[in-house]
Amino acid sequence: MTNEHLQRVARFQEKLKVLGVQGAMITQNVDLYYFTGSMQTGYCFIPAEGEPVFYVRRSVARAQEEAAVHTRPLGSFRAFGAELVQAYPQLAPQAGGPAPQLAAEFDVLPVQQLQRLQSVLPHVEWKDGSAAIRETRMIKSPSELICIREAARVIDAAFEDAMTVLQPGITELELMSRIEYAIRRQGHLGIMRMRGYNQEIITGMVGAGSAAATPTYFDGPAGGLGLSPAAPQSASRRPIAAGEPILIDIGCCIGGYVIDQTRTVVLGALPDHLKRAYDTAEHILRRTEVMLKPGTGCEQLYLQSLELAEEAGLSAHFMGYGDDQVKFLGHGIGLEIDELPVLARGFRYALEPGMVIAIEPKFTFPGEGVVGIENSYLITESGFEKLTTTREGLICLE
Amino acid sequence: MTNEHLQRVARFQEKLKVLGVQGAMITQNVDLYYFTGSMQTGYCFIPAEGEPVFYVRRSVARAQEEAAVHTRPLGSFRAFGAELVQAYPQLAPQAGGPAPQLAAEFDVLPVQQLQRLQSVLPHVEWKDGSAAIRETRMIKSPSELICIREAARVIDAAFEDAMTVLQPGITELELMSRIEYAIRRQGHLGIMRMRGYNQEIITGMVGAGSAAATPTYFDGPAGGLGLSPAAPQSASRRPIAAGEPILIDIGCCIGGYVIDQTRTVVLGALPDHLKRAYDTAEHILRRTEVMLKPGTGCEQLYLQSLELAEEAGLSAHFMGYGDDQVKFLGHGIGLEIDELPVLARGFRYALEPGMVIAIEPKFTFPGEGVVGIENSYLITESGFEKLTTTREGLICLE
Repeated sequence: MTNEHLQRVARFQEKLKVLGVQGAMITQNVDLYYFTGSMQTGYCFIPAEGEPVFYVRRSVARAQEEAAVHTRPLGSFRAFGAELVQAYPQLAPQAGGPAPQLAAEFDVLPVQQLQRLQSVLPHVEWKDGSAAIRETRMIKSPSELICIREAARVIDAAFEDAMTVLQPGITELELMSRIEYAIRRQGHLGIMRMRGYNQEIITGMVGAGSAAATPTYFDGPAGGLGLSPAAPQSASRRPIAAGEPILIDIGCCIGGYVIDQTRTVVLGALPDHLKRAYDTAEHILRRTEVMLKPGTGCEQLYLQSLELAEEAGLSAHFMGYGDDQVKFLGHGIGLEIDELPVLARGFRYALEPGMVIAIEPKFTFPGEGVVGIENSYLITESGFEKLTTTREGLICLE
Repeated sequence: MTNEHLQRVARFQEKLKVLGVQGAMITQNVDLYYFTGSMQTGYCFIPAEGEPVFYVRRSVARAQEEAAVHTRPLGSFRAFGAELVQAYPQLAPQAGGPAPQLAAEFDVLPVQQLQRLQSVLPHVEWKDGSAAIRETRMIKSPSELICIREAARVIDAAFEDAMTVLQPGITELELMSRIEYAIRRQGHLGIMRMRGYNQEIITGMVGAGSAAATPTYFDGPAGGLGLSPAAPQSASRRPIAAGEPILIDIGCCIGGYVIDQTRTVVLGALPDHLKRAYDTAEHILRRTEVMLKPGTGCEQLYLQSLELAEEAGLSAHFMGYGDDQVKFLGHGIGLEIDELPVLARGFRYALEPGMVIAIEPKFTFPGEGVVGIENSYLITESGFEKLTTTREGLICLE
């Protein structure tokens, strides 16, 4: 096992002990990659104490090449329970004793998959280990930061390239396609992975004027009109016009890791009230930065942003409009776009070195558009490092 | 309700009656779109008899515009159980009687989501309704076929465009990016949606020579080297060389519906044994077409393809190599890329008019590449209609 994967497993095992379980069964592709270094399909069993084993269904050969942990071919699934008990005697049924308990990813694991596990380990009691996994992944290592920094570089270049073709009449979809083409050639996976059920993000959105302000199901402050009811978010076929806010909320996935950033652009000039709202978004970001250091509560950052929006008289427009407002200011990023911590009510985490957080104050004006800014930040020992490299400020083009 | 959505619901209700449940709770974005016409988040309750209601969490305004079924704001989730029982008295607890039974999408529904439903309807017994949903969606309507035909047109144009830039030295990723750029501008969603747990398909793959033959977790006959262990399938950064098979297995998603096709291309000429394997793939496709008509068993098509591969002495190479072979010849397509029916052992479905199936005989040669062909077909009253429009045959470029 590499030192890095050893540390990931060890940090997770501490949490498993707190949960009081004998181990965890990891099944989701992203979690498997995090703990094993391979995204092949199978089951990685991580005992609360001892060495994990990655039981691989397919491709065994490839997992053996890629994985940092010990791998074994899964073989017949029916025999998997017996094989596990042999390798990990602590999973054996205890006559008269309490049932062994195991954790699984209840936030992403489909019911059918849990039932399959129950069928081969019928005496085991299953518990939700989602939070333990997400909390382990919340703190990034230097090697993870290398990927995120590279993603920041790639998205910045694509953004600047897009600025060279942005002109009245180009559609949101054309501009989005151009950005996607640029990042894909640089090694973007094609999507940013997202953990939330039913949530889907391709590359974020280019949204201008009223289209950007169209509400949608997506759990973010700006939805977008999209292409049809079957793709009801992000870029639409609407042509971009002068004088309207163009929200470019984009990211990419390089080496498995995402970056997330937003800039507001206008062809010509914005109406005063939108300009003022944009300035308020930047002001909120600056005031948030002041507090970005170990110890600050995540909830506190959100509450401060609510206050600042209220002071500006923009509460109704903050992070969406009316019924469609979302209740957060930012979110962790890493292998997925919706990681911990969330800057929102009820998230009691204090900032810690190694957290990477996208912070995105935005204001929505129905019929007019969305304005705002978003940077991704690393929390350091002494404060923060801004990972987003794209120029800031309202970007006004001729 | 539109007539089309009425018919979808009615066909599903027949299956719910067979399952013996009082109704189904639909939650997945694609299933919601299929039954309601909207992909906003929420719960669509479909009783075994009577009218469905779409309880919408977000965006209510947008769902009301889009949905073909009756919508209501979800409101407080805690009150959802009581609201359902009020609207559907058959869901009330029966003193002394059997518990009401409801179906849910156990193949995609995360455990946490089922637990939430159980918390508001604690007296209900939940059953797996996945098969009933997938079987309902298996038969396509004329309006669904319009989207699939349009997707076929878009991918064909992108394929021909790619042929104009394909030359020695271009990387798989560059060619893939070019194809993606072309289809995205035409309204491709950005991904092809896939139902299987942990399965991910962006636009399929461009894979040449040894890279195409690299095994991976993906549940298809050709995997691909991919970009890194965090993106371990599809196109890689490997340059394409003359004389090696270039497998272009691509699709797109237009209006929510996907198409799936494969062509084999070579710069110059293929070695004889690969040419012969390609010809065998075409021969299998032609022999399969002869049997594409209502009444033919799906399993029968797969078994015939195994026989034909064996006759050609190519069994070990058919649909992947060695341990990494997959055990099917084709799959349904529609809103998702992995729909019913599957042409494989154990799938007892007989072909029916309205089914749309991608059929993809392929041969893998480790270190050398993958050859094969894939068309998507509609089953008609009298036989089939080929939906794929791209030219067939081994495509040899200068």
